[in-house]
Amino acid sequence: MYIGVDIGGTNLVAGLVNDNCEIIAKVKAPTNSVRDADAILSDVAELCRSAADKAGVKFDEIKWVGVGTPGSVDAENGIVFYAGNLPFNNTPVAKMLGDKIKLPVYVGNDANAAALGEVYAGAAKDCSSALLVTLGTGLGGGIIIDRKIYSGFNGIAGEIGHIVVVVDGAQCTCGRKGCWEAYASATGLIRMTTDAMEAYPESLMHKSARDEGEVSAKTAFLAARLGDTPAKAVVARYIKYLGAGLANMIDVLQPEMICIGGGVSNEGDFLMKPLIELVRREEFKGGDRRTLIRVAELGNDAGIIGAAMLGKS
Amino acid sequence: MYIGVDIGGTNLVAGLVNDNCEIIAKVKAPTNSVRDADAILSDVAELCRSAADKAGVKFDEIKWVGVGTPGSVDAENGIVFYAGNLPFNNTPVAKMLGDKIKLPVYVGNDANAAALGEVYAGAAKDCSSALLVTLGTGLGGGIIIDRKIYSGFNGIAGEIGHIVVVVDGAQCTCGRKGCWEAYASATGLIRMTTDAMEAYPESLMHKSARDEGEVSAKTAFLAARLGDTPAKAVVARYIKYLGAGLANMIDVLQPEMICIGGGVSNEGDFLMKPLIELVRREEFKGGDRRTLIRVAELGNDAGIIGAAMLGKS
Repeated sequence: MYIGVDIGGTNLVAGLVNDNCEIIAKVKAPTNSVRDADAILSDVAELCRSAADKAGVKFDEIKWVGVGTPGSVDAENGIVFYAGNLPFNNTPVAKMLGDKIKLPVYVGNDANAAALGEVYAGAAKDCSSALLVTLGTGLGGGIIIDRKIYSGFNGIAGEIGHIVVVVDGAQCTCGRKGCWEAYASATGLIRMTTDAMEAYPESLMHKSARDEGEVSAKTAFLAARLGDTPAKAVVARYIKYLGAGLANMIDVLQPEMICIGGGVSNEGDFLMKPLIELVRREEFKGGDRRTLIRVAELGNDAGIIGAAMLGKS
Repeated sequence: MYIGVDIGGTNLVAGLVNDNCEIIAKVKAPTNSVRDADAILSDVAELCRSAADKAGVKFDEIKWVGVGTPGSVDAENGIVFYAGNLPFNNTPVAKMLGDKIKLPVYVGNDANAAALGEVYAGAAKDCSSALLVTLGTGLGGGIIIDRKIYSGFNGIAGEIGHIVVVVDGAQCTCGRKGCWEAYASATGLIRMTTDAMEAYPESLMHKSARDEGEVSAKTAFLAARLGDTPAKAVVARYIKYLGAGLANMIDVLQPEMICIGGGVSNEGDFLMKPLIELVRREEFKGGDRRTLIRVAELGNDAGIIGAAMLGKS
């Protein structure tokens, strides 16, 4: 038995995970991130006990706790260098939480933990190497090599959203211009959608947006499925940029599997079929073995299962 | 004692390498690549013996032979899937050469071997992870992780020249558009130089080219060093694309060291200072430890030393 914790900007989630990588109990609490690290980690410790209680498992049956957090992590020493909006700055999270719950604690970046989860229990199960690409507000990633998180010599590798795919291109929130994230995240898709809606007042995208109450990453896909030409062009454009970056990642890493997660991945075959066709044309080829590309399977549970597996990694 | 072999399209080179990773004898012969694999490997075997003879080392003091070749390699089984203009197609190079010289034979991609050489004996000495970026006719790369070649699950990772940095950009020889290689190789630099020379008939680049007898990757650098404005713009543009790709590689891999090799790297600080400044601005940051960027040290010897070290990798 293991506990996996997903520390997010909004919620803390702890899951009790068994040896088959199944979550058998899950509990959550608000992060309330304006507090200090000690207060947050006290709540995490409490959640860990609640998860065990909920499953009727004694705490001494638990081998360790793994924690996934945003930001940059020194996994070896269990220190979080910084974590965006969370109050972790060179914070010894493993030691602080370990003192509270008297169990070994492992710490990793949350996107990396999610990738590890997909390798242990999701779409990349049984793969030795994999890349998880998460298409949400941002474009996140996690690299797994030899069934372990690859995070570079300094703990921050795998920031695949910020590779530039258009030098001097669209402004990214990170400061660079032309980042993959600026095109291939849900945010990038919404921008392309909004631009096309302005240009095509008759497009069905306007109806989709009205029905949904907002312009979202679904707007163009909804209208494209109905055959709307401007929407189909938006989807094709989005896939072009998403596919360009995926082919880039394959050229560099040649992982056994790429899992596509995040909200946009819910578009299923309507996204994946043309995407995979494009990547197969664009990727560097040699020999017969080519990276598989699939939709991720575990959603938010990937982060919890992967965090629980940090001790094996 | 080890032997490292660099199989090129033009020449075969074999070097006797000692335990300090020094080449103590080097011999070469034309590849004559229109022959079949067996004939070429017979010459390689002969070269291995010549290298040992030249150094006065008995053949039974040699632990193994490592072979670096262009193309795609199954390192585990010593098979070359294909190798551009060379007659290797699913060729069991390790077995064929091993049968001829009665020594263990290891095979790797030549760019990867060069990266390994820089880690064992060159600019990245003592680094655990490194990326070698070679700026020549093409843009080649080799990724080293934990002092071993990283070549992905299928042996062809590290094709960093073909990541797209400008979607729909300049045509690359590989078929994709906008590859890093199309901008940041010597070939890309020559194209930028030629374009600028057409636009600026008064530029000193014309004199540089006349003095050198051709427009080369040096033309713009020579004129820029003399203060020529259009040439300085070419160099700045070249550095922008080169730096964008380097920052991309850092974001993904965060290697301890990036070594820049190939002809263009001979420009020294005039290239490296603004390049490193640019990368420091563009790369993803977190924590204090940042990838070092240096000029590679071993030139063509990197491939021989690295090939000799394949047995350790």
